[in-house]
Amino acid sequence: MSLLEFDVIQKYFSKITNTNNNADIPLAIGDDAAIVSLPENKELVICTDTLNDGIHFPIDTSAYNIGYKALAVNLSDIAAMGATPKWFTLNVSLPSVNNTWLQDFTKGLADLSSQYKLDLIGGDTTRGPLSITITLAGHINKGQALTRSCAGIGDKIYLSGCTGDAAIGLATSLTNVIGDTADDYFVNRLNKPTARVELGLSLVGVANACIDISDGLLADALHIANASQCGIQLNLESIPLPKISNKEQARQYALSGGDDYELIFTVSKNKQQALDNIIKKSELTITCIGEVVEKKGIEVLDKNKKSIQLSMFGYEHFKQ
Amino acid sequence: MSLLEFDVIQKYFSKITNTNNNADIPLAIGDDAAIVSLPENKELVICTDTLNDGIHFPIDTSAYNIGYKALAVNLSDIAAMGATPKWFTLNVSLPSVNNTWLQDFTKGLADLSSQYKLDLIGGDTTRGPLSITITLAGHINKGQALTRSCAGIGDKIYLSGCTGDAAIGLATSLTNVIGDTADDYFVNRLNKPTARVELGLSLVGVANACIDISDGLLADALHIANASQCGIQLNLESIPLPKISNKEQARQYALSGGDDYELIFTVSKNKQQALDNIIKKSELTITCIGEVVEKKGIEVLDKNKKSIQLSMFGYEHFKQ
Repeated sequence: MSLLEFDVIQKYFSKITNTNNNADIPLAIGDDAAIVSLPENKELVICTDTLNDGIHFPIDTSAYNIGYKALAVNLSDIAAMGATPKWFTLNVSLPSVNNTWLQDFTKGLADLSSQYKLDLIGGDTTRGPLSITITLAGHINKGQALTRSCAGIGDKIYLSGCTGDAAIGLATSLTNVIGDTADDYFVNRLNKPTARVELGLSLVGVANACIDISDGLLADALHIANASQCGIQLNLESIPLPKISNKEQARQYALSGGDDYELIFTVSKNKQQALDNIIKKSELTITCIGEVVEKKGIEVLDKNKKSIQLSMFGYEHFKQ
Repeated sequence: MSLLEFDVIQKYFSKITNTNNNADIPLAIGDDAAIVSLPENKELVICTDTLNDGIHFPIDTSAYNIGYKALAVNLSDIAAMGATPKWFTLNVSLPSVNNTWLQDFTKGLADLSSQYKLDLIGGDTTRGPLSITITLAGHINKGQALTRSCAGIGDKIYLSGCTGDAAIGLATSLTNVIGDTADDYFVNRLNKPTARVELGLSLVGVANACIDISDGLLADALHIANASQCGIQLNLESIPLPKISNKEQARQYALSGGDDYELIFTVSKNKQQALDNIIKKSELTITCIGEVVEKKGIEVLDKNKKSIQLSMFGYEHFKQ
């Protein structure tokens, strides 16, 4: 630990604790390692994501949004497992110590972590090109986690919210035409995604398979299909579209744009009633967009149930 | 997950499993998150370290050594807690996909992880300047972890092996004068440090405080002193020196050089017999180098028990 690291951790990161729960976290920041315990009958769910400057966010993204997003994308993975997020470690590589930047970054991180009462338990602060890695852990009852591999043939497929917004936000950011209220909405969806943690929690015992959308609706639906050794059929007309005037473009964004962090999940017939209750209580729009089928791979059907070429949706073009 | 990521993970990283212990790790690589369980009466000990190209290793360091060292420095943190290492996550940022590099990197990682039967349970592979983050977890019986903060006044201070070797290795690497057998030894100590995992495990219930030496003997001893709210007095004549001809330089390296990953620990009088038994069985040289005292800070005494200026040892110069 260099002096730089010690100062930065003391000044900024050591304050990101929200539970003060010494029973669960006997030792947090400040030793060679942190110590955590796990309540009986719980399993630990662990995910990790790295965000690199200019790769995972445009170079002029604010420090606040970088801090917020670095945690949000991990929260989304925990949400997709149906787990309750608990604590995280933070690795930050910085070209130099810029106090304003660190203050804003920490605020973005703290604003989101306080919503979920997360504790920052450790990490590493080093010199290097700007890069953020967060490793986030959550709890779940043993054997209850939602995975990608349990979709059953005949399950209906549901999507929370709308995909494509973040990709429009990215295009808007890169062309620097921000200023319009609609543009602000899309850029905000890119920079401050909302992880669907509460929805994920409510789906435990109801959904068979679940994944969060980071690579795009088609790409991530395919991950469920492959992991579950089945196929997925989506109905184009059912898929919610981002609110832009060009419908063809909206469809491309909805099906192939990444970074939205909505959830796709599958539900069998006998859990339909339970899902309806969740939908009624949820503030989110939850839409049935297709079905799990035997034929492997992914297929998109038009309103006449005819299969559409996936290249129509710029499937490769938007792939990151 | 991009195609690049999927391919790299499938081809290289998914094979780094050593336990096949499904009871402890119900779900590893391949979903939104991994799932791990924790045996009753155990706590989880978690650490994380980032290595950046040109900052934490010279730019021409081999991929094998980068893989090996990225895990070794984390193992050293787990060793300093007295815990048994179990599983890790791996975040790799790569400028491009170079198969030879990835093969060698994975071999370095796998060679070390197999020694400790570690499982790679998840991670993130992205584009970006070369950077490796490993988050490593271990188990320990509840309340048994060795920390920095429990040194007691009157405790003797012990050091495993010898410090300064890695800093000599770094100087040798940077000046490109490698080739001499002695040089090879030092460069090897820099690139393939040996985490003192077995020693750490044997110190549980015997040592009061423990830390691994990454920043240098003086700097890390000071971390124990500060965390334990006491002082540390080192006897210069007792400190083992790296085997180079210039004794003054050897002392500077021994006291201020970083990256050796030896352990410093403190033992109270009533545990002296237990420690003697450990020393007898250990293949490592373990040396008493000083004592924990009331007066805060760190002090180095000459053979006449006179205090020596720390600047004599290039204390600031070698600080990273």
